[in-house]
Amino acid sequence: MVLAGIELAQLIDSMNPLKALSGRINYSFQQPELLKQALTHRSLGYNNNERLEFLGDSVLGFVVSAMLYEKFPSAAEGDLSRTRARLVRGESLAEIARELEFGAALLLGAGEMKSGGYRRDSILADALEAVIGAIYLDGGFEVCEKWLQQLFSKKVDELPPLDELKDPKTRLQEWLQGRKLALPSYEVTKVAGKGHLQQFTVRCQIESLELELSAQGTSRRKAEQSVADSALQKIMELNR
Amino acid sequence: MVLAGIELAQLIDSMNPLKALSGRINYSFQQPELLKQALTHRSLGYNNNERLEFLGDSVLGFVVSAMLYEKFPSAAEGDLSRTRARLVRGESLAEIARELEFGAALLLGAGEMKSGGYRRDSILADALEAVIGAIYLDGGFEVCEKWLQQLFSKKVDELPPLDELKDPKTRLQEWLQGRKLALPSYEVTKVAGKGHLQQFTVRCQIESLELELSAQGTSRRKAEQSVADSALQKIMELNR
Repeated sequence: MVLAGIELAQLIDSMNPLKALSGRINYSFQQPELLKQALTHRSLGYNNNERLEFLGDSVLGFVVSAMLYEKFPSAAEGDLSRTRARLVRGESLAEIARELEFGAALLLGAGEMKSGGYRRDSILADALEAVIGAIYLDGGFEVCEKWLQQLFSKKVDELPPLDELKDPKTRLQEWLQGRKLALPSYEVTKVAGKGHLQQFTVRCQIESLELELSAQGTSRRKAEQSVADSALQKIMELNR
Repeated sequence: MVLAGIELAQLIDSMNPLKALSGRINYSFQQPELLKQALTHRSLGYNNNERLEFLGDSVLGFVVSAMLYEKFPSAAEGDLSRTRARLVRGESLAEIARELEFGAALLLGAGEMKSGGYRRDSILADALEAVIGAIYLDGGFEVCEKWLQQLFSKKVDELPPLDELKDPKTRLQEWLQGRKLALPSYEVTKVAGKGHLQQFTVRCQIESLELELSAQGTSRRKAEQSVADSALQKIMELNR
């Protein structure tokens, strides 16, 4: 009878989506109401997961930064930033949330439920960030850090070698230098808008390849990186 | 004679800009080479402070987020984000670095030195972020967190009440509601560019005040906030 009682309790637990998720993420909350809040979409009203998402996003950014800093001791700041952005962008987080079957535990308003909100990248990524914030509040920084290190260790280990993490301008330059070709020239051909809304158009000329491309960006630097990226893609196409 | 020896040692210390800065920031490094690196601008070459800046920026973002989360238990996510951005933007960090006389301890290349780089906002803010990263590596997270909490406690305490931290659209709406005036209407009048480079133009009409303004932004939401901000400024001017 006691055995049956335990089995019954386990059965009931497994029917509780929050407890089941707790098992899948391998974290048991001292304050289960934090997990519930982390999974509550704003379509359900005021006490939703947006504040926890704010907190979780910043813990995540820091822990991943520290992991990358340690793993790539000679990487430049720009390469670290780009790699971090790749690891924590919505798409990547939604993928993790999907692997952990967050969808089954999300608490959504009727409208979002009907329209399949539990499958949407943004809702899944936000919920994962909120759960990170909830674990931080529940267990403290060190516990949350360890949990995140486990969650991201495989992804960090699988990152491509540093070379491929270099910025497009550097990669383009190195590709040309490796073939003893003249370096590209960059020129700002247009600046539109004012202040924070400025748009720079940059032209990149690679005479040795008879290539000329343009791209836009909100800064000269961004426009240059963007046009270098296009040039690299073009070169890879031509060399295929 | 011993006394004189101690005094001499103190005199020599005070002539060492790094030791003097260490005193002003009230943190004594176990690995002083980290402080040196944190103050080394890229104009001096490869072993500069950019990697530490990457790390420090992310620690800072997290610690300030946690402080705000705790201090404003009912603030919305957007208000928390805006407040954090205000506290950690380059201008604010440069101000702190100036108060702590970072300029005297910066290690700059000859060109930057001549052109007054030690006074420039961006160089000062970057150095402060790098020192934060250095303290984290030197003392661990908890020590760095406490140090940052002290550094920012006054600024966080002095933040205006939540109301003033609300976003411009909300403030505009509440201003009009408070006077029983009809609410503004927003309309996208132009979308230019593609993908990440899209520019939205939004027109805001406030018929009750016979006001019509337009603004641009990289998303509909940003353009709306921007035009609401302009409308609030216009209203404040008219009411002065």
